[in-house]
Amino acid sequence: MKNKQIALTIGDVGGIGPEIIIKALNSPGICAGLNKFLLIGNKNLLLAKASELDLKLDFPENVEISDIPFDISKLVIGKPTVEAGKHSFLALKKACELAQEGKISAIVTAPVSKEAINNAGYYYSGQTEILEEYLRTPEINKLQAEMLFVAENLRVMLLTRHVKLSSVSSGLSIDGIIKSVSALNNSLINDFKLKEPKIAICGLNPHSGENGLLGNEENNLIKPALDKLINKYGISIEGPFPADALWANVAKNYLKGENLSYDAYIACYHDQGLIPVKMLAPKKAINTTINLPVIRTSPSHGTAYDIAGQNTADYQSMTEAINLAILLKK
Amino acid sequence: MKNKQIALTIGDVGGIGPEIIIKALNSPGICAGLNKFLLIGNKNLLLAKASELDLKLDFPENVEISDIPFDISKLVIGKPTVEAGKHSFLALKKACELAQEGKISAIVTAPVSKEAINNAGYYYSGQTEILEEYLRTPEINKLQAEMLFVAENLRVMLLTRHVKLSSVSSGLSIDGIIKSVSALNNSLINDFKLKEPKIAICGLNPHSGENGLLGNEENNLIKPALDKLINKYGISIEGPFPADALWANVAKNYLKGENLSYDAYIACYHDQGLIPVKMLAPKKAINTTINLPVIRTSPSHGTAYDIAGQNTADYQSMTEAINLAILLKK
Repeated sequence: MKNKQIALTIGDVGGIGPEIIIKALNSPGICAGLNKFLLIGNKNLLLAKASELDLKLDFPENVEISDIPFDISKLVIGKPTVEAGKHSFLALKKACELAQEGKISAIVTAPVSKEAINNAGYYYSGQTEILEEYLRTPEINKLQAEMLFVAENLRVMLLTRHVKLSSVSSGLSIDGIIKSVSALNNSLINDFKLKEPKIAICGLNPHSGENGLLGNEENNLIKPALDKLINKYGISIEGPFPADALWANVAKNYLKGENLSYDAYIACYHDQGLIPVKMLAPKKAINTTINLPVIRTSPSHGTAYDIAGQNTADYQSMTEAINLAILLKK
Repeated sequence: MKNKQIALTIGDVGGIGPEIIIKALNSPGICAGLNKFLLIGNKNLLLAKASELDLKLDFPENVEISDIPFDISKLVIGKPTVEAGKHSFLALKKACELAQEGKISAIVTAPVSKEAINNAGYYYSGQTEILEEYLRTPEINKLQAEMLFVAENLRVMLLTRHVKLSSVSSGLSIDGIIKSVSALNNSLINDFKLKEPKIAICGLNPHSGENGLLGNEENNLIKPALDKLINKYGISIEGPFPADALWANVAKNYLKGENLSYDAYIACYHDQGLIPVKMLAPKKAINTTINLPVIRTSPSHGTAYDIAGQNTADYQSMTEAINLAILLKK
């Protein structure tokens, strides 16, 4: 494995991003080994924040900063601003460029404000969509990233991400499910080094549709996709299961620290996956994006504007995000 | 309080209903006090089941049976049948008649098979809908029952019940939310004897719509309903909150045995409420129907055809359902 740097974008400068990155890098919880880190964000702001926290950022051995322009006199803590949105976007774009030049092995992203980025004139529904666009190459003209939440042995993928609930059903298709599950299965084998991964999938409707009585997406979309995944691609996937029963089984085992029944779980939509993740692993859960040319991880929380600038933010999720990037880096 | 009987409908005879009712009534966990029970279901089948379990059903003091016709030679264990569906329906109808005659103070319903009931020619989407229809009186020509799940101090109401996910949004309305929340608030005060109940409600969309970016039901339906509930009806309700964050807070406190932040939580749809309930209280959670002329409780699980006839079924949820009926009876 080449000793490339692991990039860390510092996120929205008005949020807790810079604070949790500096705290995490200074914590004994980081399993850095021989890895080197590249912080991507405004250098003056990072140095000022480190000084304010009385923490180091001068590890000449293993930390470098890739400076991103930002007028520090325009810093507003706790609110989305156009300047902060532009800085967030430019840091992500820089990380993508470095990835394409083969200089970094993973990207860890601190939380950004979607509102700030959009106000700055960059119209994306999230960081993942920016990465999808700027990590494309002439050979790959469309990337379909998948969001996977990880907390120890619990891995949860979403079939649809930030879409309103009434559009979830129309966002599902047999082909889409096949692509997403195949990407997940590849990642479990190649990134997570699992030999014969077993996957479970939730039904979309209550009671998983109760055999058509409460909705037909299970019979018309999920089951045909599973048939193909199992019989044509040899993927070990079971379901669709009623979501409440499936998560009850996960909770029972996870809370006892026991093995889970499956290596990964698939939810059809945001809350169906995020409710259990946040309930079981509110601090530990991190978000990793699979099916991109480079590994990307991020904490599962947001900018936390309400506590920004107070230096009280919990950095456990960021620590876990950095450690998972170290483990999975390509 | 008059010493009326508490009715127990025995549910689908091919499922675990008769078994868990007999087990629960024989268990020391039942806080019967001076209450009398009326089992509504086929008498021969109940006596045979009690004998098979080596348990009593001959408490002349406090248990009676209201016999419902069923040809015991047609008993099929572990599958929905037309005969069992008819028996389930007739038992529920009998319970409603007795309630209207003022002979019973509460109904506890063992699980039925919707499929069996529909195959028998009674077209209802669940027991609640049968109760809504047969508990109507000339004075009340439309009942709007509400489903409330209860596990100790955790109370969860659903705004929509057994509807497919793609119809959830169109099932919500300002008036409907106001009616449901008012019914909940009344029940918390009158049935649960809470003085100043505090209620929280989930948003429908991911991140509770992120101020319109991910859906408009929060701004167009939930917030206007809450304004009216708070300002016109003086009800203490907060939200809409992102569902994952709200449930994470509940889980943190519930798992530590601490007080919850609210007396009741409202989910917009089935899985948004049932995932957390089943994760936190898989055995304890029971389902109670509020806003009916009589209290109704039931275990939160189904017929469990897969383990029916083996006499291994866990009866804790049935025990809790009977105890809650005793506590709340009218």
